[in-house]
Amino acid sequence: MAQYSEALDGVFTALADPTRREVVRRLGRGPMSVGDLHREFPMTLPSFMKHVRTLEANGLIRTAKTGRVRTCALRRDRLALVDDWLADQRRVWESRTDRLEAYLTDTDPEQETREQQ
Amino acid sequence: MAQYSEALDGVFTALADPTRREVVRRLGRGPMSVGDLHREFPMTLPSFMKHVRTLEANGLIRTAKTGRVRTCALRRDRLALVDDWLADQRRVWESRTDRLEAYLTDTDPEQETREQQ
Repeated sequence: MAQYSEALDGVFTALADPTRREVVRRLGRGPMSVGDLHREFPMTLPSFMKHVRTLEANGLIRTAKTGRVRTCALRRDRLALVDDWLADQRRVWESRTDRLEAYLTDTDPEQETREQQ
Repeated sequence: MAQYSEALDGVFTALADPTRREVVRRLGRGPMSVGDLHREFPMTLPSFMKHVRTLEANGLIRTAKTGRVRTCALRRDRLALVDDWLADQRRVWESRTDRLEAYLTDTDPEQETREQQ
């Protein structure tokens, strides 16, 4: 549970930046080299590498070096953590709606009239 | 678009902390006073208030004061931004899968054999 919570901290931190979200989006189409990715962003390579390292440290991407080329790939399993967390919130809201509905049904004046007939 | 991106930065920043995620979860059941919420967290009120203010500044909760009581309510519309963003990523992955499928169909040797017959 603590591990899941720490993983969520990391994923949300990584996604709290427009450059990093755009990297995630582009890697959604398939793996890319750092060089090709960087060409699409108006910043220096060292600045861009900071974002790549944040994404990797927080588990959202995987990188591997072959010769002089570092290739980045998206870890969709980590994005699924956000999906799971949102689904969890929805369950809380739905149980609240169920309780509200039960309360409204219990105190529905029309229903009471019907029951008295 | 820039506004949407800034809103996402804020929502992801707010969610990158276990205490704040737990506040979001509890408020999913309905509005609560800061006092009642704070009782469930093992930290001082000033520390807790920092989290409340971060959630409010990033638009995830709304607070209102009546007399001495400040009540917090969840803004589900802001959480929906995360849902929208994830749906957007899924569209990117699916179009990639479609392209892959088209490629595999185009180069399917069995299909080529069928076409030659």
